Amino acid sequence: MEISAGPLLSRINNPDDLKKLSREQLHQVCDELRQYIIDVVSVHGGHFGASLGVVELSVALHYVYNTPYDQLVWDVGHQAYGHKILTGRRDNFMSNRKYKGLSGFPKRSESEYDTFGVGHSSTSISAALGMAIAARLKNENRKSVAVIGDGAMTAGLAFEAMNHAGVTDADMLVILNDNCMSIDPNVGALKEYLTDITTSHTYNKFRDDVWNVLGKLPVGKTFTREMASKMEAGLKGMVSKSSNLFESLKLRYFGPIDGHNITKLVDTLKDLKDIPGPKLLHIITVKGKGYELAEKDQTKWHAPGLFDKVTGEIFKKTPATKPAPKYQDVFGKTMIELAEINERIMGITPAMPSGSSLKFMMEAMPKRALDVGICEQHAVTLSAGLATQGMKVFCNIYSSFMQRAYDQVVHDVAIQKLPVVFCLDRAGLVGEDGPTHHGAYDIPFFRCIPDMIISAPMNEQELRNLMFTAQLEKIKHPFVIRYPRGEGVMPEWQTPFAEIEIGKGRKIKDGKDVAILSFGHPGNFVTAAIRELRTEGIDPAHYDMRFVKPIDEAMLHEVYGKYNMIITVEDGTIVGGFGSAVLEFMNSNNYSADVKMLGIPDRIVEHGTLKELHRECGYDAQAISDAVRIIIKEKTQHFTIAG
Amino acid sequence: MEISAGPLLSRINNPDDLKKLSREQLHQVCDELRQYIIDVVSVHGGHFGASLGVVELSVALHYVYNTPYDQLVWDVGHQAYGHKILTGRRDNFMSNRKYKGLSGFPKRSESEYDTFGVGHSSTSISAALGMAIAARLKNENRKSVAVIGDGAMTAGLAFEAMNHAGVTDADMLVILNDNCMSIDPNVGALKEYLTDITTSHTYNKFRDDVWNVLGKLPVGKTFTREMASKMEAGLKGMVSKSSNLFESLKLRYFGPIDGHNITKLVDTLKDLKDIPGPKLLHIITVKGKGYELAEKDQTKWHAPGLFDKVTGEIFKKTPATKPAPKYQDVFGKTMIELAEINERIMGITPAMPSGSSLKFMMEAMPKRALDVGICEQHAVTLSAGLATQGMKVFCNIYSSFMQRAYDQVVHDVAIQKLPVVFCLDRAGLVGEDGPTHHGAYDIPFFRCIPDMIISAPMNEQELRNLMFTAQLEKIKHPFVIRYPRGEGVMPEWQTPFAEIEIGKGRKIKDGKDVAILSFGHPGNFVTAAIRELRTEGIDPAHYDMRFVKPIDEAMLHEVYGKYNMIITVEDGTIVGGFGSAVLEFMNSNNYSADVKMLGIPDRIVEHGTLKELHRECGYDAQAISDAVRIIIKEKTQHFTIAG
Repeated sequence: MEISAGPLLSRINNPDDLKKLSREQLHQVCDELRQYIIDVVSVHGGHFGASLGVVELSVALHYVYNTPYDQLVWDVGHQAYGHKILTGRRDNFMSNRKYKGLSGFPKRSESEYDTFGVGHSSTSISAALGMAIAARLKNENRKSVAVIGDGAMTAGLAFEAMNHAGVTDADMLVILNDNCMSIDPNVGALKEYLTDITTSHTYNKFRDDVWNVLGKLPVGKTFTREMASKMEAGLKGMVSKSSNLFESLKLRYFGPIDGHNITKLVDTLKDLKDIPGPKLLHIITVKGKGYELAEKDQTKWHAPGLFDKVTGEIFKKTPATKPAPKYQDVFGKTMIELAEINERIMGITPAMPSGSSLKFMMEAMPKRALDVGICEQHAVTLSAGLATQGMKVFCNIYSSFMQRAYDQVVHDVAIQKLPVVFCLDRAGLVGEDGPTHHGAYDIPFFRCIPDMIISAPMNEQELRNLMFTAQLEKIKHPFVIRYPRGEGVMPEWQTPFAEIEIGKGRKIKDGKDVAILSFGHPGNFVTAAIRELRTEGIDPAHYDMRFVKPIDEAMLHEVYGKYNMIITVEDGTIVGGFGSAVLEFMNSNNYSADVKMLGIPDRIVEHGTLKELHRECGYDAQAISDAVRIIIKEKTQHFTIAG
Repeated sequence: MEISAGPLLSRINNPDDLKKLSREQLHQVCDELRQYIIDVVSVHGGHFGASLGVVELSVALHYVYNTPYDQLVWDVGHQAYGHKILTGRRDNFMSNRKYKGLSGFPKRSESEYDTFGVGHSSTSISAALGMAIAARLKNENRKSVAVIGDGAMTAGLAFEAMNHAGVTDADMLVILNDNCMSIDPNVGALKEYLTDITTSHTYNKFRDDVWNVLGKLPVGKTFTREMASKMEAGLKGMVSKSSNLFESLKLRYFGPIDGHNITKLVDTLKDLKDIPGPKLLHIITVKGKGYELAEKDQTKWHAPGLFDKVTGEIFKKTPATKPAPKYQDVFGKTMIELAEINERIMGITPAMPSGSSLKFMMEAMPKRALDVGICEQHAVTLSAGLATQGMKVFCNIYSSFMQRAYDQVVHDVAIQKLPVVFCLDRAGLVGEDGPTHHGAYDIPFFRCIPDMIISAPMNEQELRNLMFTAQLEKIKHPFVIRYPRGEGVMPEWQTPFAEIEIGKGRKIKDGKDVAILSFGHPGNFVTAAIRELRTEGIDPAHYDMRFVKPIDEAMLHEVYGKYNMIITVEDGTIVGGFGSAVLEFMNSNNYSADVKMLGIPDRIVEHGTLKELHRECGYDAQAISDAVRIIIKEKTQHFTIAG
């Protein structure tokens, strides 16, 4: 099916084309842009609701500001499809999130209009402030604008940036895009506060009322001039300085205004462009705006996959046989089972109840499973606080987001040896979300911390048993369980719980000549590789190490005793990772062997399907069997020459 | 000199003893506690001003609350000396910060009164909230109190915790200890806001005024009942809900009150103890209170070293020969030199202008060197934003605090290949501050990130030249320079700048049999070890590798070509660190050799002098020469047996 943009949109190749249009035509541009996003995403996939919510804002910003000279930073960035389409990427937009295609997020190397690469939330104010401070130092009249959602505003980084911005003279506008949502509904006090100022009579309206009333106060005996003046001074101080959260932080506050009123947006932005200094515009939008189903179920339509844009039917694969469940659902459902047998168990997620599937437990046991909002740092230190009271907390954070809470793991959990369980979802490559979301670094960054237990399940049963083991009273250490996004391999996953000995691997099979050591889910790629190799008469041994820390030394002694060709396979960077741990063992035990390490290479891996990326990175089944063939060939040649 | 506590204090062995005293006696307890802190710290060293500032608060908290059942969390914790002295550690307090002695921070393993280990700022609200949520789940009437400074309040973690706390029913009190300081004067909008509410007529006073006035408003023709009622409703809404930053976050706000008025503190805390839910008490204190010099120069007296408590003279070591400068001062002064030749250079520090010595540049070039407050995350993303505009930012963060900004380095700097320079101060063991402050993990946690340049100078000249190199236009990658706390080795340090080739090590000397590869300052321990070994006829080669990434492969080929006994020395954990990088090279290049890795072992290292800790960890000169002797002996035996 041919997808084509509407008559106005198809003429907009960059913001200069947009600026040639009249204000009246902008309504039509918005309609066409919205329709184009619906057309493309329904067929090609991607994030959906967020971009629909900022169609008018995207048009208004590029209409008013002198982009790319003026710097526009989109927080998180999955709402920037409209921005991309308006800035020279309309026709190429079909390649969005595809291998070698456009990134699903703004990306500096992709376009000069993408001023700052995003993906993780809450970076935009800091980045835009840096740009604004640089402009001032360089005497440039460059404007900086950060667009940030109310969900992203709850992360500490955004607060830190506002705290700094408020005392600078940086010419920066923060646009708070308030839709009460992150991927799931936004939570926390800030959200309630924003609701307070936007409901019934607004803050601004009230402020006007107060001034009006003050101007009319009858001064007399009981209400003296002195009292009036005192009250006015006080009120002015309060209203202008302290009465608004953002103004407390010395950001001039404007709004709230309707973020879907393109005319009002354009007028407001034009006014704000002339007001110097740090300021904040609060706009109210609806996630999924203009596509009724998406407006109604915003979490479901955050990134729905492919769908029929007319009926709203979301296409699901219907596999012929019973499919293996997602690791996420195994986590979510196992949490409930464990929590039923251990009353000390709690679940914590920073804003990923749907993504992690903790939502099952949140529904079943709302007091014991908490979504704390976008705040990985707080999620971890809160878990540590709970652990001091004997609670067994399963803190579920995506591997790449765990980077945000690294200090809290070291300082609040590990140094104190608190037995918090970290379920690292999305560990390893994640596919279409690309480099900002790949969980590539957690093995090295956790492996160097003393007293950590670091494990990875090869399948659903292993995940269940690791979770079961982690919650046992006798476990007195932080316990990491890393697993990838997506399906495992066991349709019949709900097996009885069995304890796993800490630091104990599993021998999958004996073999000859070569031993393959795997960590986590890629063990299944090894299984597939061996199946193929055996048809050629090559029969490697396979060990699922299960733990990278403590590593199974007895098993490694067996491996090094029997094999002098070893291949390690991991779904993480090979620098300092699982393979490196094997080398450290080899070195301290004076073994020598040819070790080939497969995993994520030491470079930024872009986006694509998991299949494409595993291929590119060289640790899918094909690559593993190739590696076995090569190591055997080299060793044989070496032996021949040496012999 | 015998130090003895005053008559009341000497009878207080735990908070129960304190509770037996009358309210009137508390004044004397405070005086004695303050004097005891002055007596001990002047002779034994440690943090000073912070604990003096919370003498009354420490006494009041233990007088009112049922500790340790009630949970008291001290943020950062260097202000907890009074707390320690009141909770059974009075006589042992002389051992504070000494090897095997008391920790300078609260520590769970040290006392049941230390509910949460601290050191890094801003963790207390999250931890106390976890404790309060657990108490509620367990149906315990346990109170949780977090004491946090206004400096620590600027870090995002504290904001995240408040945002969550405000929507819970957790029985938690946050005490905001407002003294306008972190180690250096506090900065940012929040500080100005707090100053606003505490100066002239206070927030509370104003609130009272408004209520009073409203009650007396004369209703008539011009000022109708309707107007009055509208205004009252609006004001109530504002004043009770939105008019205060903390109340915006749904924390009930109380204060500000004088934190040195023990009676008022006791009364207020008693009242607050009976008010359920999350709440905040704002107290005003003076850092260094009661010791006049410390009140006047709070940064100098944060941790002054030993001093004459009567005259206030701070004792300085007067070395016989010209001393080598601190790496910190070399950094600080070199920044100015470089900034004078390169106008794109900026300096950023999150609240460590004195500790990092960026203060020199802040004084000389205030627009180009910024203290952004306690906010490592923002400091890094701000630097990234500046870098997009062509600025060369030197972002100075202590190694252990860099753990707070790990995601920002990965996501905002490295993935975008922005050439930000990270000066990692306090890399390696830091001595008396202990495990929370040791910079033990940065080599592995940075080494796994693609495109990073990671270097460490062996002396002052190397630091200067690495800084010079890092700011060159041709450097297009993030550039880490890690160096330790304290003095280097070059009294004549101000040498002319010379560029260093990226990824190029230095051969210090050739040798025979053994090669020692060092990274950074511990190269000097190697030099000392070799000096000793040569007297025994043992003559190892020594290579200062300078870069762990990219590692000098040509040099390693030379090393592995000439030597089969190799020792690596680093001031960081050996798990995944520099030595591990050498193993990875060895493995991928099919070399084999005996490699002995010296560095921080894989366990939490406690506090002590640097000398004691280098000894304990086994990488001082003595340990290095021992390692050489052992490796030679083993190899010789092996050769003898094998031969």
